[in-house]
Amino acid sequence: MNTDRRNFIKNAAVAAGMIGVGGFTGACCAPSATSKKVALNLSFQEGTPPGKELNEKLDYMENLGIVGVEFGGRGLAARVNDIQQALRGRNLKVSAICAGFSGWLIAEDEAKRKECIETSKEIIAAGGELGSTGMILVPGFNGQQPSLQMPEAREVLIEQLKELGDFALKHNTTLILEPLNRRESWFLRLVADAASIARDTENDGITCMGDFWHMTWEETSNYGAFMSAGKYLRHVHMASRKNRKMPGEGGDVDNYIDGFRALKELDYPYYVSFECGSEGDREVTVPAAVQLLREQWEQA
Amino acid sequence: MNTDRRNFIKNAAVAAGMIGVGGFTGACCAPSATSKKVALNLSFQEGTPPGKELNEKLDYMENLGIVGVEFGGRGLAARVNDIQQALRGRNLKVSAICAGFSGWLIAEDEAKRKECIETSKEIIAAGGELGSTGMILVPGFNGQQPSLQMPEAREVLIEQLKELGDFALKHNTTLILEPLNRRESWFLRLVADAASIARDTENDGITCMGDFWHMTWEETSNYGAFMSAGKYLRHVHMASRKNRKMPGEGGDVDNYIDGFRALKELDYPYYVSFECGSEGDREVTVPAAVQLLREQWEQA
Repeated sequence: MNTDRRNFIKNAAVAAGMIGVGGFTGACCAPSATSKKVALNLSFQEGTPPGKELNEKLDYMENLGIVGVEFGGRGLAARVNDIQQALRGRNLKVSAICAGFSGWLIAEDEAKRKECIETSKEIIAAGGELGSTGMILVPGFNGQQPSLQMPEAREVLIEQLKELGDFALKHNTTLILEPLNRRESWFLRLVADAASIARDTENDGITCMGDFWHMTWEETSNYGAFMSAGKYLRHVHMASRKNRKMPGEGGDVDNYIDGFRALKELDYPYYVSFECGSEGDREVTVPAAVQLLREQWEQA
Repeated sequence: MNTDRRNFIKNAAVAAGMIGVGGFTGACCAPSATSKKVALNLSFQEGTPPGKELNEKLDYMENLGIVGVEFGGRGLAARVNDIQQALRGRNLKVSAICAGFSGWLIAEDEAKRKECIETSKEIIAAGGELGSTGMILVPGFNGQQPSLQMPEAREVLIEQLKELGDFALKHNTTLILEPLNRRESWFLRLVADAASIARDTENDGITCMGDFWHMTWEETSNYGAFMSAGKYLRHVHMASRKNRKMPGEGGDVDNYIDGFRALKELDYPYYVSFECGSEGDREVTVPAAVQLLREQWEQA
């Protein structure tokens, strides 16, 4: 690594700026804002809203019209009952389960791969009980070494995904592949790549997602990325583009319209889920972010 | 490498089949076939048409309405004069220069990187004299080892591309990044990734391309891939999807309509250039391929 964080942020501002001023792809298809009525299903991670207790957080979310909630996977099995109780009678569903497994699927060490499969299965089963769309999985972080190299890593991954996909389908849920930016994962960085892995598993239990934060660095076009994901797209993560805070905290660069346009064209029926922090008072920044996204969805 | 060629071909047939039957992305935007009049600028590599001498080949191409010709980069400087003479008075332009350099830009060994820069510059200069849109470059093949790893490989690549991009602009041409399928290049496989590298060079001399053959394996959607490439897209390679022969020799899977739709939406002004062999008589397969592509372009 020769560049430092500052360089990365600088490049980010340039890239995000291109998006902010209505870049190339945003202009080329001339959508009409009202051409398609597709619902924006917003979701929060458990840590997104203000509040201490789960029920307090869920009340807050319902008042804002949030319809999904994303839980962390670690220790989820032990929480299934409590979560079911807390969600009873609410207009809130479990949007996704975020990771929580140990080991990784492109490890050189077969024991590490098996560890990932076994711990993932436990979370997938719990997520299935909760009606989650899927469990989010990163095949390998940069720090997880030694890892298999390409193209062997992809082949070994796909074989394991077939097993996990079958298991997920039995539990009425899926496994969602998440691409990260290059500072976090060399192996899977582009939404189209995640979709192509999902395709090659030939297994309906394997899906993919895009996270606007990571996409800021890796994708030239949010529109193109989501259109590539197509029917494999099962989840979307949301954050400001500059510093992974609440949408809007990044200023004008927090423009998601071209990505939203793709979601509308795809009749995307799943969730757009916040995965971000906040530099401000959440009682202010959270509702402001929700309003911003609803406005941009209308414009898309 | 655990899989063999047979497996790859088998998976390919599945993937291509998904495209052939009019996959997801082809259906989602409901284009009208006549919505946009954009010219299909077809190009051949020098080896594509039947014929022995260059002028014989160029005559054949003109008769078919081909408007571009792609030359190999190796030894190009010594051929500039002859090529200029052969093209004089013809309705044919140099579409692109295909590689021909030595060394590679993500080599661990700095001498190998410098070798790539120096040999590329010679070809870029010759290509510029010929009015080429650009010189095609692969940053690193799987067999070129040792190579830098991600993310350092990308950073080192971008620094060198800035130099090559400046050089190309001075010669009124560009350097075109080509993604390959995973069996040939682990480093650059997706069109969106090539576009994002081009973006991050912040240099108009760096562009990218897509090759339908490689895209068959790596992309889920030709439409999404080209939309992601957007303004960075400078060249397209064409081949049958099953075995890299003439379009049409692969049968029904040789469907390029969703990719063509993106090119039309982008007002793509450059070339679609054949890079493929033929199992049949070129006097038959070449005109048939041209007709097939023109029909599909109309349908896009």
